[in-house]
Amino acid sequence: MLRAIVSSPINLLLLVAPVSWVLAATSPGSAWVFITAAASLIPLAGLIGLGTEQLARRAGPALGGFLNATFGNAAELIIAVVALRNGHIDLVKASITGSIIGNLLLVLGLSFFVGGLGRRTQKFHRTSANNMSAMLFLGVVALVMPAVFDLSIYGTLTAHPAALDRLSFWSALILIGAYGGSLVYAFTAHRDLFRPDPEGAHAGPLFPTGAAVAVLATGTLLTTVQAEILVRAMEPALARFGFTELFVGVIVIALIGNAAEHYSAVTAARRDDMTLAVEIAVGSSAQIALFVAPALVLYSFAIGQPMTLLFNAFEIAAIALSVLATSIVVGDGESNWVEGLQLLSVYLILALAFYFVPAG
Amino acid sequence: MLRAIVSSPINLLLLVAPVSWVLAATSPGSAWVFITAAASLIPLAGLIGLGTEQLARRAGPALGGFLNATFGNAAELIIAVVALRNGHIDLVKASITGSIIGNLLLVLGLSFFVGGLGRRTQKFHRTSANNMSAMLFLGVVALVMPAVFDLSIYGTLTAHPAALDRLSFWSALILIGAYGGSLVYAFTAHRDLFRPDPEGAHAGPLFPTGAAVAVLATGTLLTTVQAEILVRAMEPALARFGFTELFVGVIVIALIGNAAEHYSAVTAARRDDMTLAVEIAVGSSAQIALFVAPALVLYSFAIGQPMTLLFNAFEIAAIALSVLATSIVVGDGESNWVEGLQLLSVYLILALAFYFVPAG
Amino acid sequence: MLRAIVSSPINLLLLVAPVSWVLAATSPGSAWVFITAAASLIPLAGLIGLGTEQLARRAGPALGGFLNATFGNAAELIIAVVALRNGHIDLVKASITGSIIGNLLLVLGLSFFVGGLGRRTQKFHRTSANNMSAMLFLGVVALVMPAVFDLSIYGTLTAHPAALDRLSFWSALILIGAYGGSLVYAFTAHRDLFRPDPEGAHAGPLFPTGAAVAVLATGTLLTTVQAEILVRAMEPALARFGFTELFVGVIVIALIGNAAEHYSAVTAARRDDMTLAVEIAVGSSAQIALFVAPALVLYSFAIGQPMTLLFNAFEIAAIALSVLATSIVVGDGESNWVEGLQLLSVYLILALAFYFVPAG
Repeated sequence: MLRAIVSSPINLLLLVAPVSWVLAATSPGSAWVFITAAASLIPLAGLIGLGTEQLARRAGPALGGFLNATFGNAAELIIAVVALRNGHIDLVKASITGSIIGNLLLVLGLSFFVGGLGRRTQKFHRTSANNMSAMLFLGVVALVMPAVFDLSIYGTLTAHPAALDRLSFWSALILIGAYGGSLVYAFTAHRDLFRPDPEGAHAGPLFPTGAAVAVLATGTLLTTVQAEILVRAMEPALARFGFTELFVGVIVIALIGNAAEHYSAVTAARRDDMTLAVEIAVGSSAQIALFVAPALVLYSFAIGQPMTLLFNAFEIAAIALSVLATSIVVGDGESNWVEGLQLLSVYLILALAFYFVPAG
Repeated sequence: MLRAIVSSPINLLLLVAPVSWVLAATSPGSAWVFITAAASLIPLAGLIGLGTEQLARRAGPALGGFLNATFGNAAELIIAVVALRNGHIDLVKASITGSIIGNLLLVLGLSFFVGGLGRRTQKFHRTSANNMSAMLFLGVVALVMPAVFDLSIYGTLTAHPAALDRLSFWSALILIGAYGGSLVYAFTAHRDLFRPDPEGAHAGPLFPTGAAVAVLATGTLLTTVQAEILVRAMEPALARFGFTELFVGVIVIALIGNAAEHYSAVTAARRDDMTLAVEIAVGSSAQIALFVAPALVLYSFAIGQPMTLLFNAFEIAAIALSVLATSIVVGDGESNWVEGLQLLSVYLILALAFYFVPAG
Repeated sequence: MLRAIVSSPINLLLLVAPVSWVLAATSPGSAWVFITAAASLIPLAGLIGLGTEQLARRAGPALGGFLNATFGNAAELIIAVVALRNGHIDLVKASITGSIIGNLLLVLGLSFFVGGLGRRTQKFHRTSANNMSAMLFLGVVALVMPAVFDLSIYGTLTAHPAALDRLSFWSALILIGAYGGSLVYAFTAHRDLFRPDPEGAHAGPLFPTGAAVAVLATGTLLTTVQAEILVRAMEPALARFGFTELFVGVIVIALIGNAAEHYSAVTAARRDDMTLAVEIAVGSSAQIALFVAPALVLYSFAIGQPMTLLFNAFEIAAIALSVLATSIVVGDGESNWVEGLQLLSVYLILALAFYFVPAG
């Protein structure tokens, strides 16, 4: 088991976690606390994934698929829960946005680009890509309507009437229902829509159940601790680098949370398994939109600090444009490196716009 | 002929019509007038359809196709004309919106869902689905531009400059021209784009021409009467149930008008004839957007009570999102019950938003 | 060589150029100066194209492809540069908009319509059409974000903060980078994405290099002169016809600049070569969005008269709707004359809206 953990060089970043503890204790006002906490979170997402996968292999296909689907974006979920509990609602919305557009544009774009270099064209199975575009579009509808509500009735995106809470709450339930339906479909049709499981992906050794539970528990606990440090250390880091909370949420936090998807998708693309690469990137986005985001809304209501589905204009535009761009690009079941370059360019333009948004 | 009418259990609702007359005369302030008038309208749409189909079978393919295409949404058209004459312009726009999104999301969604249960996937011919998505998108353009006009020049969606009337009038003519073109194409290519006519659909007996005309005339007349009762009885019903005119138009009136499409499309889907189901749902929507809506605009100008193509922000967002969702979902020529669930979820979220919009 | 120039009847319009000089000298306030200058520009775009093609044939595939790609929209570029130098920034933006929507709706629409008459359906290769839709969508993102920026932070589309300049500048660089990438892909994959080069297109005689350079130089020089006359004569023409600068830019200037594309695309469509027709129309649009527009932004910064990528609401709506309409219509790789009629109808509705926008 330890070999499985040590074998991946990225896990060396785990050693940075204790450094972040020392820094947080000795110089809590330093930007280095944020940097080290952020770095240590990158391998932790992989660790949770490893524990989940091991448990899933023991649990049988149905429960295993459910585990994989639920813990697929566990790191993003934990970071967001910690941020919510600390009252950083805007940061949570920004990181949801960043996760969705990061997966669609950066992960998928890099996969197309790296996979397509030296190849004229690559093909992938477009049915599941299309299914997920449709799911993502459902998420877009749930994000657009609260904004239309606020803008058309109050003339602004900052009003917070009670109806918006109720609209968000019920929309979140509907999204989770649709997500649940697609899990059921995936299990009955023996096709995992969200976390594809290619032949040979389980090549590693099988851990004892206790060890798998231990890895999962340790990963979850450490992620919570590091997320707490990260969120508390954000203020000095923002001041140091001149970033806004919006930019950190959309770009930085999302990059940390998506690191695992990046690695798997680009690796798959390089060995010409584009179906897997597309399913990782688009599936992970769909999971954020239809499970993580609404779960966070419901959780925020439970802890009495309601977060609505009302995002700001940049976030809505970025998500809607990313989803439309993806659905155009994956619609024909073919990719090449220029399409990758296009998606990366869209990401760059969006990132620029988020960078230029003034604070407050 | 009577057997054909009596054989369908839904036609029992015709018996509710006289009840509505008695109620309208005895207790005009009761919400039950609205309810009974609404219920009686459901079979009337089917009755008009029966008369049209019978006449069309006698009229030969070209004229018959024209009849089917023109009377396809006759009930919606009659209700809207009555509402227009009574000055309920907002109700008309709401019911146009509701008809379009109801067909695209509720009818198509239920068809995908019911048809897909127990089947892994269903296929349909995607060329005509794609043609109709394109026609629907033309309708979206005609709805979006007046809003852009008003918003960007006057900063509001409530200004009513003369240019908006002229833009709406000419846009309506262009839409009807495009609709006429597609009818010509359908007849020359022997393919009915809007009202597909599958083998065996004409299995029933052939009425004498006089009887067919009588059925059509009776259906039209009764629909007009019941629509008049419905519109006049709306105020007390709104007060009773706490609904807004917007919500009644988008959800309730549209449900009544689309009942026939619901039945035919879901039945077709259940026997795995998805091409027909998709053509009924998407074709009926396209007909509303490119024929019924512009015809109502022209009629409103003729009676000196001009209705523009300027819809409110919710209606525009709902129509645009529905059309995009549909074009993503039908783009691959395959469906399953999860895609149906997604479309139904989009409908639910839109309905929720319409429900929460405050009156006035 | 002269025979090649004289053989095309449209080149007779070149004779109108001297007329415009006489008029500009004798009655500078007449609307006829504008009309004659506009008419003379139509064949000049073709002349530049002829010179470029001749040079390209001598230059070998790689450099030749680059020449064809760069000079493909040379006339549009020259007119815009002249307008920019004369301070007509709004006219430039309007003509960029008009070129994009004109190619997508008018050129492609006419091609579908004329090509489809008498044929039930026409097929084309949809991979490159899809690639270009994706590129166009990248352009849409670059246009939408500055507007979101201005609208959400300043509540208007007329604010001009420094961040908008920087966002536009960097976005322009990213667009040109993506454009460059697609040129590299086209050359290495031996497939010209932007200026397809069908068998037999080079059927004409091969000019000596000097003659080709002379044609290109003369065409470029004359275009510059005529563009200068056109721009200076615009004021009296606007007053005479009651047009706004916006309408002239979107409709009139764009028609002049796209005349060559019109002719080639419709001719190709009529002989059932829809792949070529689609590539001319959509490819030319993509080139405007990803090369001409950003090049003009960079040029405007170089001459100290910065033009941002912030377009007005009509322009953004028109471009976004055109790109979405195109991507729906070309998505299935099939066309018929009704789809052509639909695109033409979209163009008409947009043109109407631009016509009704009041001046200022």
